[in-house]
Amino acid sequence: MSASEQVLVDRAYLSAVAEPPAVRLAGFVAEKGAVAAAEAVRSAREPAEVADEVAARRRHVDGALLLDQAARSGARLVVPESAEWPAAPMAALAGAREVGLPGVAEPLALWVRAGAVAPALTEPGVAVVGARAASGYGEHVAAEFGHGLAAAGFPVVSGAAYGIDGAAHRGALAAERTTVAVLACGVDVDYPAGHARLLRVIGQCGAVLSEYPPGTRPRKHRFLVRNRLIAALGTATVVVEAGARSGAANTAHTADLLGRHVLAVPGPVTAVNSVGCHELIRSGGAVLATGVPDVLEALGRLGVSPPAAAESAERRGDALRPEVRRLHDALPVSGAAPAEELARDSGLPLHKVRALLPELELDGAAVRCEGGWSAM
Amino acid sequence: MSASEQVLVDRAYLSAVAEPPAVRLAGFVAEKGAVAAAEAVRSAREPAEVADEVAARRRHVDGALLLDQAARSGARLVVPESAEWPAAPMAALAGAREVGLPGVAEPLALWVRAGAVAPALTEPGVAVVGARAASGYGEHVAAEFGHGLAAAGFPVVSGAAYGIDGAAHRGALAAERTTVAVLACGVDVDYPAGHARLLRVIGQCGAVLSEYPPGTRPRKHRFLVRNRLIAALGTATVVVEAGARSGAANTAHTADLLGRHVLAVPGPVTAVNSVGCHELIRSGGAVLATGVPDVLEALGRLGVSPPAAAESAERRGDALRPEVRRLHDALPVSGAAPAEELARDSGLPLHKVRALLPELELDGAAVRCEGGWSAM
Repeated sequence: MSASEQVLVDRAYLSAVAEPPAVRLAGFVAEKGAVAAAEAVRSAREPAEVADEVAARRRHVDGALLLDQAARSGARLVVPESAEWPAAPMAALAGAREVGLPGVAEPLALWVRAGAVAPALTEPGVAVVGARAASGYGEHVAAEFGHGLAAAGFPVVSGAAYGIDGAAHRGALAAERTTVAVLACGVDVDYPAGHARLLRVIGQCGAVLSEYPPGTRPRKHRFLVRNRLIAALGTATVVVEAGARSGAANTAHTADLLGRHVLAVPGPVTAVNSVGCHELIRSGGAVLATGVPDVLEALGRLGVSPPAAAESAERRGDALRPEVRRLHDALPVSGAAPAEELARDSGLPLHKVRALLPELELDGAAVRCEGGWSAM
Repeated sequence: MSASEQVLVDRAYLSAVAEPPAVRLAGFVAEKGAVAAAEAVRSAREPAEVADEVAARRRHVDGALLLDQAARSGARLVVPESAEWPAAPMAALAGAREVGLPGVAEPLALWVRAGAVAPALTEPGVAVVGARAASGYGEHVAAEFGHGLAAAGFPVVSGAAYGIDGAAHRGALAAERTTVAVLACGVDVDYPAGHARLLRVIGQCGAVLSEYPPGTRPRKHRFLVRNRLIAALGTATVVVEAGARSGAANTAHTADLLGRHVLAVPGPVTAVNSVGCHELIRSGGAVLATGVPDVLEALGRLGVSPPAAAESAERRGDALRPEVRRLHDALPVSGAAPAEELARDSGLPLHKVRALLPELELDGAAVRCEGGWSAM
């Protein structure tokens, strides 16, 4: 399925004519289709409740021009009418709009910079998000999650910011797997500037996408609006480090509203960067995650060896029955003790001591010698 | 209420004649009373199921001698027949024995080193436990909890070990409040040796106690057995750092079985010392605790100012309505823009922009100047 030229031009127009999230316009487009809706907006014949969203820009936007501008920066428009559209995640946003979740609506199109048809967009991903001013610990953990989740086959979705976002993307790239950067500005805008090279690599090996048309500058509110796309694109969202009232906590909250799995990574209680994560766990808004296996478990894809495998020989004593353990503890390490003394010392009846000593001997934990028994 | 000399001698005898937890003997004593039970054991007329617990030592224990030995080290015996007995916590252990919780029984007496009648034993305490090989982070946090809980009026209960235990005791002592050390050996045995001075101070300012008679050496299984007393004496148990299969996790599990509040402090997911804490939180065996207020909240003693108080002026923008925030974001920081340009840029209808600008001006967030409006 490929979208017609007219649909592309009209979706380009619609994506720019209203500031996201354009709740009323999205409903109108869902009802009438992109071509009829765009025609209505251009000619100021849209319903009254849509007018507020589109009146300011209706005569200042040119869809064909935006498509040209995108093409010059190596980007293209992905629309619901094409096979590349991340249908399930975007349907979740449309559903949230329909039930009246405030400030949530599906994007009218996605501007995408990607090397090829991006599996990144149609395969279920995992969002890894967190603080810009991350700690070394946070960046290390984000890279581990990014690497491990990508290696497990999940495109890693994040926001390309400094700190946790960047580390998560880099972790996925290091695994030579795909990663998706969702921007709060046009895909032709290198923001943050220090991530220009990272964004170029993600655009080649994964996908850089945005609902904002080319040339759109980042604005503070756009980061919060953008977060719903990250939340929707992740079947799970992992918050690595987050302050008390942070953008990452906002993404986690939206993910929760969309019915996604939300996990948060704990950290030192002395670190401000972990306050948001601990709040999420305490409030039940997130499950505690210590590593990728916890995410896979949440997603029902557990293939991890049970902790029993890690049991070491030195802990064997713990598995002993309590009475055997008491007798074992009573055995002298140097010298030897007769059974009667072991009975007194352990508080076990003599007949039990006599019955258990050969058991410990067979187990290699006790040895019979002149004058009694001693520990091995 | 003070216990008769005979009761003291008999309880001293009973506390030494069986290795704790002496489930059968505890039931027998609860049924017959200490004097009759001790007489029966001395003369080998106890029920058959009790015999296994007492046969090995019945002729080797002298209650009066143990009381003398205790007195020489400044200790005394606290028994259920005295007002000093921690009645509620010990009743919880007896209840657990009666319903058949494996390996759990009330102690038959408590050997105590304490400066005065110890409020430590009769007031509800909070247990703070954790790894011996604690990290600097763990010790810091344990000391904070010890200090804060003691200052809030809770005797801090712990096991006097190196690491978390010692830090928790020291935190309580630094608050000039009481703390309780529960030992896995006699109260006259300085274990660990490096805590001899700490134990002396706790014995003066709080209480050092044990169910083991004077002279009893520490043994590995005794630490696990001792843990049930710590769990019972705390109305809440806080695990600060714990390895995967640790004594502290064992204490937490027992506290949970006894219906106590269990909390665990998170830490870096890269630290082996926090694995046990994270497991407890993930499994629902503990609530995540970041500080003393979380413990007080669990205990229903919340007197903490709500987080809203921490809101700073710089975050004011977040409280703005979405449309006002969008307009505020569109205001140029240098130069000025007319309302028409602000409408286009923010995507808001011109009439809304005109209505909202004076609002932002009143709020001190926008300023009217030649050529339009700019951000403050």
